[in-house]
Amino acid sequence: MHSFRNDYMEGAHPFVLERIVQTNNEQYIGYTEDNLCKKGRSAIRSAIVRSDNKGTLRSAGIIPAALQVEFVAGGTMANLVSIAASLRPHECAIAAPDAHINVHETGAIEACGHKVLVTDDADGMLSVAGIDAVMKEHEYGRSFHMVKPRLLYVSFATETGLVLSLSELTALRSYATSKDLLLFIDGARLAVGLTSKDCDVTLADICAAADIFTIGGTKNGALFGEAIVVRNPDIQRDFRYIMKQKGAVMAKGRLLGAQFDALFSATGAQAGVEEAFEDEPLYLSLGRHSNAMAARLKEVLKRHGFDSFISDSPTNQQFLLLENHVAQDFMHAFDADEISRPDSEHTVVRMTCSWATTQEDIDQVDAMFSQAEANVEA
Amino acid sequence: MHSFRNDYMEGAHPFVLERIVQTNNEQYIGYTEDNLCKKGRSAIRSAIVRSDNKGTLRSAGIIPAALQVEFVAGGTMANLVSIAASLRPHECAIAAPDAHINVHETGAIEACGHKVLVTDDADGMLSVAGIDAVMKEHEYGRSFHMVKPRLLYVSFATETGLVLSLSELTALRSYATSKDLLLFIDGARLAVGLTSKDCDVTLADICAAADIFTIGGTKNGALFGEAIVVRNPDIQRDFRYIMKQKGAVMAKGRLLGAQFDALFSATGAQAGVEEAFEDEPLYLSLGRHSNAMAARLKEVLKRHGFDSFISDSPTNQQFLLLENHVAQDFMHAFDADEISRPDSEHTVVRMTCSWATTQEDIDQVDAMFSQAEANVEA
Amino acid sequence: MHSFRNDYMEGAHPFVLERIVQTNNEQYIGYTEDNLCKKGRSAIRSAIVRSDNKGTLRSAGIIPAALQVEFVAGGTMANLVSIAASLRPHECAIAAPDAHINVHETGAIEACGHKVLVTDDADGMLSVAGIDAVMKEHEYGRSFHMVKPRLLYVSFATETGLVLSLSELTALRSYATSKDLLLFIDGARLAVGLTSKDCDVTLADICAAADIFTIGGTKNGALFGEAIVVRNPDIQRDFRYIMKQKGAVMAKGRLLGAQFDALFSATGAQAGVEEAFEDEPLYLSLGRHSNAMAARLKEVLKRHGFDSFISDSPTNQQFLLLENHVAQDFMHAFDADEISRPDSEHTVVRMTCSWATTQEDIDQVDAMFSQAEANVEA
Amino acid sequence: MHSFRNDYMEGAHPFVLERIVQTNNEQYIGYTEDNLCKKGRSAIRSAIVRSDNKGTLRSAGIIPAALQVEFVAGGTMANLVSIAASLRPHECAIAAPDAHINVHETGAIEACGHKVLVTDDADGMLSVAGIDAVMKEHEYGRSFHMVKPRLLYVSFATETGLVLSLSELTALRSYATSKDLLLFIDGARLAVGLTSKDCDVTLADICAAADIFTIGGTKNGALFGEAIVVRNPDIQRDFRYIMKQKGAVMAKGRLLGAQFDALFSATGAQAGVEEAFEDEPLYLSLGRHSNAMAARLKEVLKRHGFDSFISDSPTNQQFLLLENHVAQDFMHAFDADEISRPDSEHTVVRMTCSWATTQEDIDQVDAMFSQAEANVEA
Repeated sequence: MHSFRNDYMEGAHPFVLERIVQTNNEQYIGYTEDNLCKKGRSAIRSAIVRSDNKGTLRSAGIIPAALQVEFVAGGTMANLVSIAASLRPHECAIAAPDAHINVHETGAIEACGHKVLVTDDADGMLSVAGIDAVMKEHEYGRSFHMVKPRLLYVSFATETGLVLSLSELTALRSYATSKDLLLFIDGARLAVGLTSKDCDVTLADICAAADIFTIGGTKNGALFGEAIVVRNPDIQRDFRYIMKQKGAVMAKGRLLGAQFDALFSATGAQAGVEEAFEDEPLYLSLGRHSNAMAARLKEVLKRHGFDSFISDSPTNQQFLLLENHVAQDFMHAFDADEISRPDSEHTVVRMTCSWATTQEDIDQVDAMFSQAEANVEA
Repeated sequence: MHSFRNDYMEGAHPFVLERIVQTNNEQYIGYTEDNLCKKGRSAIRSAIVRSDNKGTLRSAGIIPAALQVEFVAGGTMANLVSIAASLRPHECAIAAPDAHINVHETGAIEACGHKVLVTDDADGMLSVAGIDAVMKEHEYGRSFHMVKPRLLYVSFATETGLVLSLSELTALRSYATSKDLLLFIDGARLAVGLTSKDCDVTLADICAAADIFTIGGTKNGALFGEAIVVRNPDIQRDFRYIMKQKGAVMAKGRLLGAQFDALFSATGAQAGVEEAFEDEPLYLSLGRHSNAMAARLKEVLKRHGFDSFISDSPTNQQFLLLENHVAQDFMHAFDADEISRPDSEHTVVRMTCSWATTQEDIDQVDAMFSQAEANVEA
Repeated sequence: MHSFRNDYMEGAHPFVLERIVQTNNEQYIGYTEDNLCKKGRSAIRSAIVRSDNKGTLRSAGIIPAALQVEFVAGGTMANLVSIAASLRPHECAIAAPDAHINVHETGAIEACGHKVLVTDDADGMLSVAGIDAVMKEHEYGRSFHMVKPRLLYVSFATETGLVLSLSELTALRSYATSKDLLLFIDGARLAVGLTSKDCDVTLADICAAADIFTIGGTKNGALFGEAIVVRNPDIQRDFRYIMKQKGAVMAKGRLLGAQFDALFSATGAQAGVEEAFEDEPLYLSLGRHSNAMAARLKEVLKRHGFDSFISDSPTNQQFLLLENHVAQDFMHAFDADEISRPDSEHTVVRMTCSWATTQEDIDQVDAMFSQAEANVEA
Repeated sequence: MHSFRNDYMEGAHPFVLERIVQTNNEQYIGYTEDNLCKKGRSAIRSAIVRSDNKGTLRSAGIIPAALQVEFVAGGTMANLVSIAASLRPHECAIAAPDAHINVHETGAIEACGHKVLVTDDADGMLSVAGIDAVMKEHEYGRSFHMVKPRLLYVSFATETGLVLSLSELTALRSYATSKDLLLFIDGARLAVGLTSKDCDVTLADICAAADIFTIGGTKNGALFGEAIVVRNPDIQRDFRYIMKQKGAVMAKGRLLGAQFDALFSATGAQAGVEEAFEDEPLYLSLGRHSNAMAARLKEVLKRHGFDSFISDSPTNQQFLLLENHVAQDFMHAFDADEISRPDSEHTVVRMTCSWATTQEDIDQVDAMFSQAEANVEA
């Protein structure tokens, strides 16, 4: 039985793994200064440019060659390096309460010396209104007795599977610019965000909006690894020193370069992803596949009476609010993940689809429900 | 006109200043290893023992000689040193949202690497219920993905002038013990807390409850300086190294020793404090005086129609919620302090009495109101 | 032409890579809590026990099951996590000047808040005499004005390819114990150290001596990854929290588990390593191979007149002191690595053999020299 | 008997203390934003300008009003705040091995995350040659694997009482400028440095050379306190946030303002210092006095056969190399300070004169020697 616990339970998509295997015996210099990394960087820059169908980058004067692209092994590492490189000691991040950096990174940002201020936004959907309330409190004091807000952190897609619209994203950017704030977009689940139903944001839009953002590989078909795209030249300065100091520069960076080259220079169609859209990079197609599976799973769940979703997630994570005993059975049956207990009688359960989830896996869920229903009737 | 802006607007109480002047030409060794510091430490330990009218320390097996007493120049320093010495990198503090360490120390705790988790308690009144909700969230996960709660921070009196009762304090201690948490009491305004109306907590109770606590001098008659009392032997270990590393060990520690000796070895009566109670130390009498002045001020304010206090503070700080234009006039007249703007039409204004506030200062406030009222009638 | 620049230029040994490929489509839970990690941990513990031919572990009362084994992506990460978990804020490491943490990790240890004190030992060979001089300086002051030495850092093999003898290692342990110091052994190149000519130290000896040590995979046949073995229970406490906070817990820990299982549960013979000794684990055989290649290379170099080795390295790294212009030619010919310029006329050049270096590669070097000599004669 | 242990054994010079006493009952706002601080800042700026007899500031385009002047309680605090505000995480300080920040601040700089690289300069006399060797090592690598040198730290006078000449200082500045390094001058003993025999450096020269420097009060007549002068606008930015975060902003900043106003707005002659030179500020006269006493003491020591000074210190600290048993007697007789034990048979002993040392104190030393000599002869 397929496990729906999370989207990093398998290794790499075969197309990606193949690149690692193919290049295994080749010799490359270390620390992401090799040719595979060069290709990976180039592929990402190209994909960003190709996605600029609205001309946003051009009108913003963003030159692809000036984007710094770095590779690190994991998501917490990507976040802490990016934020440590962006802030002076007294500066802090603003995030929604659910933000990964606020809850699930064991205080990694604080360990770099920086406070994380939270807004009152739900579901990780950082909003201008939420930020503005925090800013007002600090501007009112406008004084050295309080930390200085300097960086906005928002996940795309969010921790509960939602996705900012282009207008929301643009509003964050405008607000950030007006207040001299940096915008950091955590793209651990960027692929499912960008390919979600009704999403009007492109990779180019992300790049134009963010001073710095990440492109998550671990949860989207890579064996492991995240790319960091640094657009803001001030953050680029000596960025690799900060990486090295935090243990984030891989000796065999080639592994990361090879994977991101595979994910961004090949199309999803070339790699055999059924849902692939036009000539989009494999990276996006894998997200699209995950979302498609999740949509079907959602339909199956609803059809069998499970419709208490805590958010209308258009992405690969679906969250159900269940009575505790139902949740137990549910998690046992599908290896779903327990997320929280909002009150003493209920459990929030997560089912996640990945690039590796198949139509057969969904059908099996459907079948199990039908069988159970038949048993009950009998 | 006397300013009611805060309780650190004057220098030292004359009795305290005199000690510094008297000893000025004497030579003492440095770094709080001198005889004046020895006397100051001894005076504090004695005062703690003398205040143990319920035998709490004895029954808890706390030996005064085993208490480590240190002196530092200021409150933020006292807090950051105490907390840095108490926590390992992944451990964090729990505090009420208003807590000084959470709002007004420019992220000093985070700069030492530690997250500050907040409860939903109002007015700085950290409660077992508030803490327990935070603990449950972290115990539920009980995992290395989240910071590990390790230290409770509570101010006595709180940032908005309130005071924990003995039963509340005891409950915090019991809870802390049951969950292997440390209890840190920020006593920046300890004197006004302990001598407030209806307070049933003694210095000994504070010492018995806290693993580590501070005794604020800056806001209570000292020229400057705070004492830190470390009861927990685990925190005592190498505590002075941490102090030195943070720049907290004064070369002329004698200044701090002399002041705390004056504040704790003399009685308030000896130093001429009118409100002095029995043979309590000068330190407490000064707090008692500040509270008495604030009570009279409150009465005057009420008599003249200002009764929108945001909390029923029994201590030296009084907070009024006023319409903005009234607040402006008010602050202009009495040099009161603007604290916050809860909404667009109101301002919270603080009036603070100190050891230096006199009955005449209060009378003058009264007279100004009466004059203003007469003007209005005329 | 094979590059001799370093020992992390290739991917993984085929036997190791195969494990990753084989398990790629299997689903495992995250964060090194999966069954592959369980197997990897178990394989390492077994190898430690099997290497205990002198009964050192047994007589020291070390129980294999009580060893904590963790996996991280890289060497700097392994070092900084291990040291951050071992020290309180005022405590520091003592290391030789060449120590990797002192020179080539961009201040990673200082970024965790800790000073690195250096001895005057050459070639990374930390000695009791060297440590004792530093200790005396600090004991003399024995005071909170100076950092408190707490952890000894030594690499095995060292940064210049040398290897501590058992008596040197035992002396470090005894000294550490006598002074309440922790001993951390950086095993980034542990395999070549343990299998070097005349080495009388076993894996069990390393484990018995060190409070905590690492087993480097990146430079010895793994795709990437280092194991950390924590023997000291005080350092084990909450170790995974520290890892997570530093971004060191891989979401797909399975990759690390699978590799270390391959390296330690299979023998070198099973994996086809020619130099494999008895039934030693593949991990050691790969080091043995690297050393064998380096010994042959050294012979070739000497035969052709290159014998100005800066150290008598018995391991896979060989360092030559060459005149600048010779060095340039040399590095161009063999893709050797430039290490330093001790004076204006000389360059130190490094040639490194890895698990992937073959006899043919060495023969080719030989042939190139012969050809060059023939050209000169002609 | 007067103690010669150090220069912070007494309280404040009476003229300085008087200012604190006079203003004790006045009310001032907090956190160094009061009028006394304003006066103190202004007095320092004026003194800097008045000392610019060579027109250095004018020709460098340094506008006194643009100098930021801050006050903190102690020397370690001044150093750590200054350096924390100057560096990004991967940047480091270069200092001589004896540097206070390297040896006697319990790793305060490392606790802020920054490595301290040391030159091979003796006696704290940081030299261009010493720095350049360190720089070459790092430029050679010029890479993110090593920390990035960014700030030069030098004490004026040095830890062993020596003083940079103007040409040495200018050379440091030129070198710093050429390499984009910041120059931080630790002026904990600035007064004795500037007024030492043959010193050709003025306060204006210090200000023109340094990006940021401190003016030590604690060891030169203040009750306590150090001023920090920030000339470089990049370091000025948000400097007070960093101060607050480190606990360095005194609530009663007035105490520091009053003292530095006294030290810099009054002349030494007005305050009755016999050695006062022309209309120099009291601050300098106090240093001049300390130096004069030390010169006389040195003469007395030499006359009685003690002439093994380890450095030719022209300032208030004198260091003698003595046989251990002589050192013991010596320290017992004069309460001198034991500094180090360079070998098993010798001790370095320090005798320090301060603003409070009198001619009678020196005479008494002379008399004690004479008496002892008479006893020996008898």
